Amino acid sequence: MQGTVGELGEFGLIRELTARLAPTPAVDLGPGDDAAVVKAPDGRVVATTDVLIEGRHFRRDWSTAYDVGRKSAAQNLADVAAMGAVPTAILLGFVAPADLPATWATELMDGLRDECQVAGAAVVGGDVVRGDAVTLAITALGDLQGRRPVLRSGAQVGDVVAVTGWLGWSAAGLTVLQRGFRSPRAFVEAHRRPEPPYHAGPAAADLGATAMVDVSDGMVADLGHVAAASGVDIDLRAADFDVPAQMADIGQAVGVDPLVWVLSGGEDHAIVATFPKSVQLPARWRVVGEVVRTALPGRGGRVTVDGAPWDRAGGWDHFAGE
Amino acid sequence: MQGTVGELGEFGLIRELTARLAPTPAVDLGPGDDAAVVKAPDGRVVATTDVLIEGRHFRRDWSTAYDVGRKSAAQNLADVAAMGAVPTAILLGFVAPADLPATWATELMDGLRDECQVAGAAVVGGDVVRGDAVTLAITALGDLQGRRPVLRSGAQVGDVVAVTGWLGWSAAGLTVLQRGFRSPRAFVEAHRRPEPPYHAGPAAADLGATAMVDVSDGMVADLGHVAAASGVDIDLRAADFDVPAQMADIGQAVGVDPLVWVLSGGEDHAIVATFPKSVQLPARWRVVGEVVRTALPGRGGRVTVDGAPWDRAGGWDHFAGE
Repeated sequence: MQGTVGELGEFGLIRELTARLAPTPAVDLGPGDDAAVVKAPDGRVVATTDVLIEGRHFRRDWSTAYDVGRKSAAQNLADVAAMGAVPTAILLGFVAPADLPATWATELMDGLRDECQVAGAAVVGGDVVRGDAVTLAITALGDLQGRRPVLRSGAQVGDVVAVTGWLGWSAAGLTVLQRGFRSPRAFVEAHRRPEPPYHAGPAAADLGATAMVDVSDGMVADLGHVAAASGVDIDLRAADFDVPAQMADIGQAVGVDPLVWVLSGGEDHAIVATFPKSVQLPARWRVVGEVVRTALPGRGGRVTVDGAPWDRAGGWDHFAGE
Repeated sequence: MQGTVGELGEFGLIRELTARLAPTPAVDLGPGDDAAVVKAPDGRVVATTDVLIEGRHFRRDWSTAYDVGRKSAAQNLADVAAMGAVPTAILLGFVAPADLPATWATELMDGLRDECQVAGAAVVGGDVVRGDAVTLAITALGDLQGRRPVLRSGAQVGDVVAVTGWLGWSAAGLTVLQRGFRSPRAFVEAHRRPEPPYHAGPAAADLGATAMVDVSDGMVADLGHVAAASGVDIDLRAADFDVPAQMADIGQAVGVDPLVWVLSGGEDHAIVATFPKSVQLPARWRVVGEVVRTALPGRGGRVTVDGAPWDRAGGWDHFAGE
């Protein structure tokens, strides 16, 4: 396809985008009407929205449109999984400059579609409007299949903290890109296209997880939300995290302690949950800490690493300085 | 409240925004976790997303933050109603410059909350990020309560076309504002804060509507989508529309045929539907036309007014020139 989204026009663009989609059995009605209709067999629907802006959440020179689609879908689908639900659908609000190449838009949609497919979901609707900065507002829906949703607030003193998925890979890849390199490829790829363990969310719920969150802003930062919501203190053991040899090598090359990537790096969308000690965790879960005590009154919960505060590059505040 | 959203920070802003919300019985879990959980008693969920950008869909000097909230919620909730569903929830993706006054954000949320309340829905979640242009991405959810969704594609030859709600008021108000005036107040208010007849959507479905849409881009333009999707031609009778005397007066004052506002003006979110002739319509529905014939093969359906093409200021293409 040639030309820009401005040349295609709103309805031409919508035609091109929706032509690339395929429904799933959960889709009663896809794009093209006032609204979509998605099955919610459980009688409840899980829903979450995230916004991604060019230059802030992705760069067109570092990521292809396809990868931006994969990544932005993954981010939302992981939120659904972290409730213990199976993703069913996403909707896309898409702001595009008139001079955006039409292929950028269609490849974005291919990425959204393919990531949905990995998670078992479908793109069911959206809106396209013209604006200065490429902006994606993605809403993901999911089905709890009868499960109790696993909240941030359920962690109990004595629970173990366990994680599954990748940690620090995206952050290491971002550092590599920021230094002007395009390899090692595995880490750059991990930054461009995270692989959240979608299945692990519902599985953790079935195993009896007491609290759960996906790691989008960093392990310590996101567990901080669990600690605060549950009113507990959590201690992580640095030695129990996996720092792959290749990540350690990059760390040495660029002068960064790789543990910073593992504990403070977000965007891999690993899933971290607390479980009663009695739960037999499958091999892919790694126990990395414990809920050590009830938080002191009035102080909220906090997360320590080997008993000490972790103050190296905390989470991400969208309104803080660049 | 003083200061800017940048001074509040992401988490401070989220606290301020969510503190203003109140749940409804449909909300199992509101803001603050990875995702919200909303009841979908029907086993299906209706979902739709719209994006609104400052300067394009609203102006901060013409509308208060509260009115922008009311209007942007209304636009999405009306889409849900036009499927024959009862709105249950909205999610907000909110892009804000760091120097946006914090009160603008909180008043926006008040407007979203209050419009949701009119429709019986609640704000259940969202995301805030920093960006240059104030941008709202709103997703609305709804419950069909066992109804068949009323699509755009079901209009049948011989059906009557009927409308309920306001037509042309927002467009007349916009013209007034564009000319630098702030009155007549009723029309300016209608532009700032539409009043979609939410209840009429499910009611029309129960009455046997064969096709339905809300008027967001203009009566002729939106019925054009119905005609195209249904493969039929629709003829409207200009004399059967209501042109209030005060609207006619404004038209004379500014040199605009008020029928242009009524037939081409959007944003009032009236609801227009097609019904079998046999249906006894309640008094608030106004019959304004008929589905006259099957569309000629290969030409799509079209909408005429008194048998002639209507070419005065058609619908709205978001990628066309300003």
